[in-house]
Amino acid sequence: MHTVVQPGATPLAGESAPVARVAIAGATGFTGQELLRLLSRHPAVALTAAMSSGQSAGASRRLPALTRLWDGAIAPLSLETLAGEADLVFLALPDSAAAEIAPALVDAGVRVIDLSGAFRLRDQAQRARWYPETHALPRGLAYGLTELERQAVASAQMVANPGCYPTATLLPLRPLISAGLVSPGTDIVVDAKSGVSGAGKTPSERTHFSEVHGSVAAYGVFGHRHGAEIEQGAGREVNFVPHLMPLDRGILSTIYVRLTPGTTEESLAAVFDKTYGGEPFVRLVGPALPEIKHVAHTNFCDIGWRVDASGRAVLVSVIDNLLKGASGQAVQNMNVMLGLDQTTGLW
Amino acid sequence: MHTVVQPGATPLAGESAPVARVAIAGATGFTGQELLRLLSRHPAVALTAAMSSGQSAGASRRLPALTRLWDGAIAPLSLETLAGEADLVFLALPDSAAAEIAPALVDAGVRVIDLSGAFRLRDQAQRARWYPETHALPRGLAYGLTELERQAVASAQMVANPGCYPTATLLPLRPLISAGLVSPGTDIVVDAKSGVSGAGKTPSERTHFSEVHGSVAAYGVFGHRHGAEIEQGAGREVNFVPHLMPLDRGILSTIYVRLTPGTTEESLAAVFDKTYGGEPFVRLVGPALPEIKHVAHTNFCDIGWRVDASGRAVLVSVIDNLLKGASGQAVQNMNVMLGLDQTTGLW
Amino acid sequence: MHTVVQPGATPLAGESAPVARVAIAGATGFTGQELLRLLSRHPAVALTAAMSSGQSAGASRRLPALTRLWDGAIAPLSLETLAGEADLVFLALPDSAAAEIAPALVDAGVRVIDLSGAFRLRDQAQRARWYPETHALPRGLAYGLTELERQAVASAQMVANPGCYPTATLLPLRPLISAGLVSPGTDIVVDAKSGVSGAGKTPSERTHFSEVHGSVAAYGVFGHRHGAEIEQGAGREVNFVPHLMPLDRGILSTIYVRLTPGTTEESLAAVFDKTYGGEPFVRLVGPALPEIKHVAHTNFCDIGWRVDASGRAVLVSVIDNLLKGASGQAVQNMNVMLGLDQTTGLW
Amino acid sequence: MHTVVQPGATPLAGESAPVARVAIAGATGFTGQELLRLLSRHPAVALTAAMSSGQSAGASRRLPALTRLWDGAIAPLSLETLAGEADLVFLALPDSAAAEIAPALVDAGVRVIDLSGAFRLRDQAQRARWYPETHALPRGLAYGLTELERQAVASAQMVANPGCYPTATLLPLRPLISAGLVSPGTDIVVDAKSGVSGAGKTPSERTHFSEVHGSVAAYGVFGHRHGAEIEQGAGREVNFVPHLMPLDRGILSTIYVRLTPGTTEESLAAVFDKTYGGEPFVRLVGPALPEIKHVAHTNFCDIGWRVDASGRAVLVSVIDNLLKGASGQAVQNMNVMLGLDQTTGLW
Repeated sequence: MHTVVQPGATPLAGESAPVARVAIAGATGFTGQELLRLLSRHPAVALTAAMSSGQSAGASRRLPALTRLWDGAIAPLSLETLAGEADLVFLALPDSAAAEIAPALVDAGVRVIDLSGAFRLRDQAQRARWYPETHALPRGLAYGLTELERQAVASAQMVANPGCYPTATLLPLRPLISAGLVSPGTDIVVDAKSGVSGAGKTPSERTHFSEVHGSVAAYGVFGHRHGAEIEQGAGREVNFVPHLMPLDRGILSTIYVRLTPGTTEESLAAVFDKTYGGEPFVRLVGPALPEIKHVAHTNFCDIGWRVDASGRAVLVSVIDNLLKGASGQAVQNMNVMLGLDQTTGLW
Repeated sequence: MHTVVQPGATPLAGESAPVARVAIAGATGFTGQELLRLLSRHPAVALTAAMSSGQSAGASRRLPALTRLWDGAIAPLSLETLAGEADLVFLALPDSAAAEIAPALVDAGVRVIDLSGAFRLRDQAQRARWYPETHALPRGLAYGLTELERQAVASAQMVANPGCYPTATLLPLRPLISAGLVSPGTDIVVDAKSGVSGAGKTPSERTHFSEVHGSVAAYGVFGHRHGAEIEQGAGREVNFVPHLMPLDRGILSTIYVRLTPGTTEESLAAVFDKTYGGEPFVRLVGPALPEIKHVAHTNFCDIGWRVDASGRAVLVSVIDNLLKGASGQAVQNMNVMLGLDQTTGLW
Repeated sequence: MHTVVQPGATPLAGESAPVARVAIAGATGFTGQELLRLLSRHPAVALTAAMSSGQSAGASRRLPALTRLWDGAIAPLSLETLAGEADLVFLALPDSAAAEIAPALVDAGVRVIDLSGAFRLRDQAQRARWYPETHALPRGLAYGLTELERQAVASAQMVANPGCYPTATLLPLRPLISAGLVSPGTDIVVDAKSGVSGAGKTPSERTHFSEVHGSVAAYGVFGHRHGAEIEQGAGREVNFVPHLMPLDRGILSTIYVRLTPGTTEESLAAVFDKTYGGEPFVRLVGPALPEIKHVAHTNFCDIGWRVDASGRAVLVSVIDNLLKGASGQAVQNMNVMLGLDQTTGLW
Repeated sequence: MHTVVQPGATPLAGESAPVARVAIAGATGFTGQELLRLLSRHPAVALTAAMSSGQSAGASRRLPALTRLWDGAIAPLSLETLAGEADLVFLALPDSAAAEIAPALVDAGVRVIDLSGAFRLRDQAQRARWYPETHALPRGLAYGLTELERQAVASAQMVANPGCYPTATLLPLRPLISAGLVSPGTDIVVDAKSGVSGAGKTPSERTHFSEVHGSVAAYGVFGHRHGAEIEQGAGREVNFVPHLMPLDRGILSTIYVRLTPGTTEESLAAVFDKTYGGEPFVRLVGPALPEIKHVAHTNFCDIGWRVDASGRAVLVSVIDNLLKGASGQAVQNMNVMLGLDQTTGLW
C-alpha cells in the first residue's frame, strides 16, 4: 500500500507513516466539515481526497472556518478516484447517494463508514418503509455504536454509523434492557431535544434563525425514522419524540422507563459501571444530571439517572450531535477498524 | 368606592371610569414588571400603587423598559397602603412573603390574586412538604386556572394563580382525564421545557448566560413542587421533569399518555372542542403541533395532539410563561373577578 | 365613504365606526405579519383585505401566530380590489413590486404607505443606483420619519416608510446636525447592529440558524443602500457599516461624531429635549445607554449619548426593527395621515 | 530539572519527556478552565498543579466539562507550592491578586504568564488610573501580543498577556500604523462586539441570561481600561466602545480609519502579507469579511479589510476571546518562551 499525502495538509511534527489512506465523500455539509477538521489533523491516517457532489465542488473557499486546517481543494465526486486513492471512505452524503455508492465501494474492496441512514436498519420491511432507496445490505456490515459493537466494528468491511438520536438514547438504554432491569410490557418514552445543526445545512423555513430563536418545537411524532432505529436497538417498542431547540450543537435525551421490581439507583450504577467503566468517551455522572454544555465540541456521551421508590427511572444523556452523534463516532469507528487506540485524533 | 388614579399613568382616550383600584406588591421582578405593563394600560382598572420590598423600592429608574408606560415610583411594601388604596391586590412576591401577607389582606376585605406558590396546594400534607411557610388557606380561595375554574374564580375572595408548568400541562391534560379518555393505571409522562425567565430575576450560576447559551439541562427530577401541583390537577400520579432551555420566555410541555380502548384523534378533538371551542385564549391546532414562537408575548395557550393506532397519545402545549403562565392569567382572573370581558387589556 | 368590516375580525367592545378602510399588500412576510397584528386590532380603522403574491396566497394556515387575531384569508394580490376596497394601502412587498404598484394606486386616488425602499431616495441618480426599477416619484410623496416629518406626512398622498437602519440612525443624528452641533468636515461613523428578522423571511445560507447562532458578522461595507438613505437624511457623508447579530428583533446604532467647539453633553440634551420632549415614542435616556431589550416588541426609539472633554460624542439608539423600524412606524404614519392620535393602536 | 507528572493526566501515546513543569493559579474561572483543557493535553509540558482561591478549591466536581481531561484536584492557592513545583506559572486571577503574586513568583525565579490586566500598561500614570493596585513592573516583562512581540516574549521572565479587545484590535491596526498607512491627526474608531464569557463567571444582573438574550448593549464609553491598552499599542488616541452581544464566545472588532493619500486596498494587503504571511494563527481574508463563527473554539485571528476611493478603510477582525483573546494566546506565549513550535497543543 502506498500513501498519498494530500497537498493541503501541514505535516505534524514527529508524525510517523500513516496506516491508511482515507477519503471523504460529501465534505461540505456540517458532518463533512467536521470529518475534514478531524481527519486533516489525525496523526495516523492520510486524508487523500475530499469530494462533494457537483454544485459544491471547488467550494473550499466556502469553508473559511477550515482555512489552514485543510487547504486542499474539494473535488467533484468520483467513485473511481475514491476506490483508487483510499483504503477507507467516509460517506457524508444524502441517503439516496449513499445507498448507491456504498455497495460499489465495498465491491471494490474499500472499507466504508457511512454516516447516512441508508444501511442502519437490518429489517428489510423497516428499511423499505424508511429508506426505500436502499435495496440490499452489503456484506461485512456492522452497526457502529462503538462502545456496544466494538468487535463487529473491528472486523467490518462497512460500518453504518448510528443516527444522532439513537446514539444518545441507546448508550444509556440498551445496557439496562440487556441486563433485564427494564420492566417488560411497560411504555418507554424518549423525549429528545436537538440543536439545529442536526437538520443539516440546506436553508429552509425550519432552519431560519427567526423561526428557531426564542422557540421550541416538537416534530416527527409517531413518524421519525430514528424511532425505528431506536426500537431496533432496544428490541422493543419506544415512544420517541424529537424536539428542535434554539442552539446549534447538541442533543439531550430524556428517557422514562419502569424498572423491574427491586431495581434501585445502585442497580443502574452497577450496570453502567460494568458497561462503561473503561470507556474513555462515556462519562457516568448519575445521580447528577448531564448538560449539553459539558459535551459540546467533544466526543463524550455523559449519562445521568434517577430512580424513585415506586420503580420509575429517568435517564438523561447528552452528546454533541456532530461529533459523538456523527463524525466523532465515525472517526472512533475508523480507529477501531484500523486497530488504533480509539481515542486517536479525538481529544 | 372612590378611585385614585395613580399620577404616572397617561389617561387613555375615551376611557370610562375604572371599575376597581388595583395594586401590585412585588413590582420589580419579571412577573411584577409584566403586571405593571398590563395594568398600567388596562382600560377598566386604576393602578393605584406598585410596591417592592426594601432594596428594590424607588427602583423605577431600574425599569427602563417601562418608561412612558409606567412613570410612577415603586413604593416600599406597605400592608396598610395596600389595604387602604386598593380593592384588589396582586402579589408577585416570594412564597414566604406571600404566605404572610395574603391572609392579612383577605381579612381586611381586599381581594387578592397571588402569583406565588404558597396557596396552590389544597392538601395540607402536600403543602407542608413543598411550602412549609404556609399554614392555613384563606377563606374564599379559588385555583385560578381560568378556563377550567371560571365560576370559582368569579366569586373568589382570593385566587391562587397557577404555576407556569401546571398551566401548560393541565390545560391539555385535565379535560382528557375528566372525560375518561386516559387509561387508568398507566404512566403519564410530562416532559416540560422552559425559558430562563421562569427561574426569576436573581442572578445565579444557573441563570448565567454562558451556562445556558448553547445548552439544555434537566432538573428537579422526582422533586419539583410543580409536579405536586400537576398531580393535584390531574388527580393521579404524573412523572414530571422540567428542562431549562436557551431562550428567555416560553414553555413547551410534551405529555405522553395511554388512552382507553377505542379512543381516537377525533375523540380528543371532540373533548377539546367542547372544552375550549369558545375560549379566546386557547387555540386548538391538532393534529398540527404548536411552537413557543407562536405564543410568545401573548396570553394564548396552543394545544396540539397526535394519537397512534395502539392507543398512545402525545399532547403538546405551549404558553408564554410570564403571561398565560403568570401575569397574563392573573389579569385574566382579575377580569373574571370584576365581571369584565376576560380578554380586556390582554390583546 | 362606506366601511367594510373584514369577516375574520372580532369586533372590539365599545368600538366606534372606523375612519378608514385599510389593506395590506404583502401580508405574509415579517413586516406584513406585524401589520396584520397591529391593524386587525386597531380601534379606528377597518382592515378590509390582506393580500399576498401568488405562492403565499391562501396561506393563512401558515400564520399560526395570528390565529384569533386575524382569521381572514390571505387573498391573491389584486390591484383592482385594493383600489376598490381600501382608502389606504400598506405595501410590504419587494422593491420591484412596490415600484410597479404604488404609482397605480396613487393614480387611483388611494393613499399609500410603502414599506419597501423603492421611493425613499429623492435624488434620481442615487435612486437609479440603488433601486434601478423605480422610475419616477409619485406626487404627494413624503418621507415617513414621523417625528421629524410629521407635517409632510399628515397631508401626503403617499409615504415612503424609512428603512430600519436610517430610522435608528437619523432620529438621534439629524437634530444634532440641524442644530449645528456636529463639526463640519469630520467623519461620521455609524456602526449598526441588527437582528436577523431584518434580512427577511426567505431562507438562505445567511439566515440559517447555524450560521448566525454564536456568530457576528459585518456586511455591506461601503455598499449598503441604507447608507445612501442615511446620507440623504444627514445631508453629508456617513461611514455606515451594518452587522448581523444573533438575535431576532432589534437594531442598535452606535454613532461616532466630532462636535463643534464648546458643545457639551448638556448641549445635546437640550437639542434632544426640544426635539423629542413631547414625543411619545422617543425616550431620552442619556447619559445612560439604551439596550435593545428595552424596546423589543414596542414602537419606542431610545436614545443615549456621551461626550468627552475633547469634543467627541458617542450616540447610541435602539429600536425594534419590525416596529419602529418598519410596521410600527407605518401605522404611526397612518395615524398621522388620518388625523388620529399617533399612538392609537400602538401601545 | 525534574518533572512531576500530575496524577490525573492520561499519558499520551508516544509522548516524550516534558520540557517544563507548569501550573495554573485560578483554574476555575472561564480562562482558567480553558488553560486546564489546553495544558492537560499539551504534549510537551507537565501540568503539575491547578489552584484556586479559597472557596473554589476542591471544586473539581464543579468542572464536569473537564472530567477525563483533567481528573486532578483543584488545590488551594499556595505561593510556595507554585514556586516549588512549577517552572512556569499561569495567573488567571483577579487583577489585585495577580498584582500581589506575580512579583513574588518572578523573584523566586519562576517564569510567569499573567492573564490579568495588572501589568499590561507600561505608563505608570495610566496604570495608576486603571489598575491602582499595581505598584511596579517586574523585571523581564514583555507584552504578549505574540505575533508582534515574539522576540521579547521568547526571552521574557514574565509576560503580560494582552486583553481580549486589544488583541482583536491591535493585530489588524498596529501594522498599518507602523507602516505609516493611517493618516495622522484623524480619528480612529474601534467598535467592538463581545460575547458574554468576556464578562467572567461571577453571576450578575449584567450576565443574567434574560438580560442578554435578544439584546445588545454598549458599555464603557470613554471609560474602559482596554481603551488605554489599545491606545498604548496604537501609539495614538482611539475612540473605543465595547458592546455586549447575545453569544457566549467571540469578539468582532470593527475599526474605522482614514488612510494616507494614495493608500489602496492592495497597500493594506501588502502590509498584512508581510506581517502575517508566515503566521499560523492569523488568517487574512480581505477583501472578504471574517465572522466569529469561523474562529470560535480556535486560536485564530481572522482579518478582513475594505478601502474606498476617498481613503476610508474599514478593518474587521475576529477572535475567540477565551483562546486567542486569553488562554490560547497564553499557551502560544508559553510555547515561544520554551522554544517550542508556537502551535504545539493549540490545533
